[in-house]
Amino acid sequence: MTATATTRPVLINGTWRDADVASTFQATDPNSNTKLEAEFPVSSWKDCDEALDAAADAARQLRKLPAAKIAEFLERYADRIDDAKDALVEAAFSETGLGKSPRLADVELPRTSNQLRAAAAACRTGNWCMPTIDTKAGIRSMYEQLGPVCVFGPNNFPFAFGSVSGGDFAAAIAAGNPVIGKANSSHPETTRLFAEQAIEALKETGLPLATVQLIYRTSHADGEKLVSDHRVGATGYTGSRGAGLTLKAAADKAGKPIYLELSSVNPVVITPGALAERFDDIVGEFATSVLMGTGQFCTNPGLVLLVKDANSEKFVSEVAEKFSSSAAGTLLSPAVAKSLSSSVTKLTEFGAKVVTGGGEPESGRCAYSNTLLTASAQDFLSNPEGFQTEAFGNASLIVTADSVKQLCEVIANLEGNLTGCIYSAASGDEDTYDSVAFELTPKVGRILNDKMPTGVAVSAAMNHGGPYPATGHPGFTAVGVPGSLLRFAKLTSFDNVRASRLPVVLQDKNPTGETWRLVDGTWTTSDLG
Amino acid sequence: MTATATTRPVLINGTWRDADVASTFQATDPNSNTKLEAEFPVSSWKDCDEALDAAADAARQLRKLPAAKIAEFLERYADRIDDAKDALVEAAFSETGLGKSPRLADVELPRTSNQLRAAAAACRTGNWCMPTIDTKAGIRSMYEQLGPVCVFGPNNFPFAFGSVSGGDFAAAIAAGNPVIGKANSSHPETTRLFAEQAIEALKETGLPLATVQLIYRTSHADGEKLVSDHRVGATGYTGSRGAGLTLKAAADKAGKPIYLELSSVNPVVITPGALAERFDDIVGEFATSVLMGTGQFCTNPGLVLLVKDANSEKFVSEVAEKFSSSAAGTLLSPAVAKSLSSSVTKLTEFGAKVVTGGGEPESGRCAYSNTLLTASAQDFLSNPEGFQTEAFGNASLIVTADSVKQLCEVIANLEGNLTGCIYSAASGDEDTYDSVAFELTPKVGRILNDKMPTGVAVSAAMNHGGPYPATGHPGFTAVGVPGSLLRFAKLTSFDNVRASRLPVVLQDKNPTGETWRLVDGTWTTSDLG
Repeated sequence: MTATATTRPVLINGTWRDADVASTFQATDPNSNTKLEAEFPVSSWKDCDEALDAAADAARQLRKLPAAKIAEFLERYADRIDDAKDALVEAAFSETGLGKSPRLADVELPRTSNQLRAAAAACRTGNWCMPTIDTKAGIRSMYEQLGPVCVFGPNNFPFAFGSVSGGDFAAAIAAGNPVIGKANSSHPETTRLFAEQAIEALKETGLPLATVQLIYRTSHADGEKLVSDHRVGATGYTGSRGAGLTLKAAADKAGKPIYLELSSVNPVVITPGALAERFDDIVGEFATSVLMGTGQFCTNPGLVLLVKDANSEKFVSEVAEKFSSSAAGTLLSPAVAKSLSSSVTKLTEFGAKVVTGGGEPESGRCAYSNTLLTASAQDFLSNPEGFQTEAFGNASLIVTADSVKQLCEVIANLEGNLTGCIYSAASGDEDTYDSVAFELTPKVGRILNDKMPTGVAVSAAMNHGGPYPATGHPGFTAVGVPGSLLRFAKLTSFDNVRASRLPVVLQDKNPTGETWRLVDGTWTTSDLG
Repeated sequence: MTATATTRPVLINGTWRDADVASTFQATDPNSNTKLEAEFPVSSWKDCDEALDAAADAARQLRKLPAAKIAEFLERYADRIDDAKDALVEAAFSETGLGKSPRLADVELPRTSNQLRAAAAACRTGNWCMPTIDTKAGIRSMYEQLGPVCVFGPNNFPFAFGSVSGGDFAAAIAAGNPVIGKANSSHPETTRLFAEQAIEALKETGLPLATVQLIYRTSHADGEKLVSDHRVGATGYTGSRGAGLTLKAAADKAGKPIYLELSSVNPVVITPGALAERFDDIVGEFATSVLMGTGQFCTNPGLVLLVKDANSEKFVSEVAEKFSSSAAGTLLSPAVAKSLSSSVTKLTEFGAKVVTGGGEPESGRCAYSNTLLTASAQDFLSNPEGFQTEAFGNASLIVTADSVKQLCEVIANLEGNLTGCIYSAASGDEDTYDSVAFELTPKVGRILNDKMPTGVAVSAAMNHGGPYPATGHPGFTAVGVPGSLLRFAKLTSFDNVRASRLPVVLQDKNPTGETWRLVDGTWTTSDLG
């Protein structure tokens, strides 16, 4: 099958060309729940195979380039993204329904370009490589390029987690790897516009043109083949648990690292003391956190744990009031609306009660009522797996326990999550905090105090990760430098390697004068000797 | 089925008790190829289940203890190992045939106790946790306990990689995790003697007694169940590829990290220039490296790559002379002898020629002739997988290429390996080196110059790891601190967590005055603010 004249081209080996088309698809404008005009190709294996060959070749070329060249590309690309803001925002609004401003134009876009710049800075200094020197043993080690990285971006951050613009992309490139981006099917045009900027930036900075490639969709079988291909170094995937676990099984079998960000209900514990002390503030913070972006954040607080008292009941009713009096935002796609509705139905079948919201998705646009559900801890404990069904979107479940002890029992039955929050009183709550934190911390990647989990700072100390099934590995973060880069790297020791043959970052002279290196147990920016 | 009076007890939850026995087994003395008297239990799932419960409980207790307590245990255990040297050496000699001195008593034993002390030091300072502080964002992160770790030790290092004494054990404990040791079936008594010292050291230092537990063997199905159990944090496995990949499949499916050290042929490239310059030295170094310890090292040089010239042919004949004139050492077990013989047969079936050695294993003891095989690069390239069959033991394959270009083609067809060595001339070989190193480095965890790969220093800059299938993940090392500890840890961010609730290592005051922490991009041992 060949592409029709209106089918968008793929970007393979530096050229925008017609895809080898298995079929085509169109994205939906969730604002009107109607199909958008542009047709996108579902690529056959031939496209993947050519992209893999080109990426393998680009990887070889990238290994010969100084890190500063890669940094230049990331910076130039960042500037181009800033310049192309209007078109990107327009496309993303049509494809995702996310607010143009502030969300897309003033929050997500600058975050995206700044993330690329942060990755560039790490690349430039080589700090992310963790250069380690043992002068006595004559051994030096560092993290370095792993090989071509496949990036499967999610639906909910068309810019900041985009397949050819987001965190995984920036990390993979900064670690010296070419990227094969698999666009999220709900915003292919947005992704294409990014790739247009990327290829121009590659040309401007003299990098191999196959450093960034883009396909839009493949068959499931080809997706599995892609992540397990011998030419691939690793894969970054953010999305649904089902598809993610299928890819994981394929990659695991081939011994290829795959970093997954799957699902998370992000438990929020609010102690009776905290509710008594800051009731209104907490109601407000929680409702804002759930409804912001129509609840479509990886770290959306989908599960609240309370201890039963007068305030806990009042909390439910006041949150319900906030939910019902707020307009329901637009959801990313018909699939998201359908999945949200289906998750709410499942939760009620397990025994959760709908306090407000529920029902069927709207028809004129992709939307669903702001939904609050409740259950007792006893209910939860009778079916922990069921009650942890993720309701991705503007919905949350409040579980009320009879005691702190029972609340801890609920926590002990939680799966791995990205985040866990504990709200407690300014004083007098330390015993409760200790009990709760002791159970909750091992279950989550990030533990927060008195703060909702939405909002993931790009910080060296950030862990946007967590134990399975929140992610595929408890030791890695998808956000923050250098952590996010280390996923796409191999560790290499240079044992008795002659001085002139060492990578620049491991030579006696500190390559930048400001690169941190662990020399004989001491972190230093000095030259050796 | 219950244990007989002579069946050795398992160590579960602090008590030496009769195993819940599915069957029993005996180890073999490879020096005489006869069964040793002691019977060891094959535990049923009941033993595993109880060990897991006890380990989960121990993990909770360990989280409440200061790191210094864990360090004390490691140090006390190290001292006890030194004191118990004679009995350990005696048992290991009977079970493995490895030389009593220097190998067991003077090399492996001090390495083992010093490895425990190095892990203790990292634990004491908290340096392994990579404490990271972002004062502006109010986020602090560190690596911390992951949960109970199962350790499956290999046959070839009864001390330094032993299930309850070796590198994985030391790393898991120092990272705050209890260990369930699964003894290697070829040296169960040696492992039991270590566990006897461990439990006494636990008692002396007041750690939870289930911090170290020991079973000897399980069914394959129970092994898979063990590594994928919800109570397990991770698994460390060193051994055969077949068994390792079976465990990996089970652990992967459950989302449980498993660190594997499988097989490796450790390619050694010797340039024509190097041979011309240091012919005798290189012959000597190579023969010593292959025959030392009867070649039973993970990093044994099993594949030599040469370029055809007069010296390459002479190299083959002189190495063959060394091999045939040296007495064949004792192998670890009948299984190792059988597997070595079978691998040599396979290689010859693929087209390799036996220059010296080959044939059947000896019968009076576990041994096999020192074996040298040769093949052309053309042969190799016709069946790269076959020619990479690992012949674990005192055997090696020399592959001769027609040119550096063809040699590089061979390298491009290699699987992941632990090490790769390049011998080159003092000068004039840089172009050849560059071509070879460019191909070889991405394939190996450690690249060496002018040095054989046997000998794995315990260094912060060591990578005893490598791309799949040498190991299960290209980013981790099994030897060296802090790298080896990071495998058994989860990353946790503390976001807006109140100062008094932070782990000691993340508080404003540097807990030891010498703990390295990354504060706002600068590595420092200072207090904050």
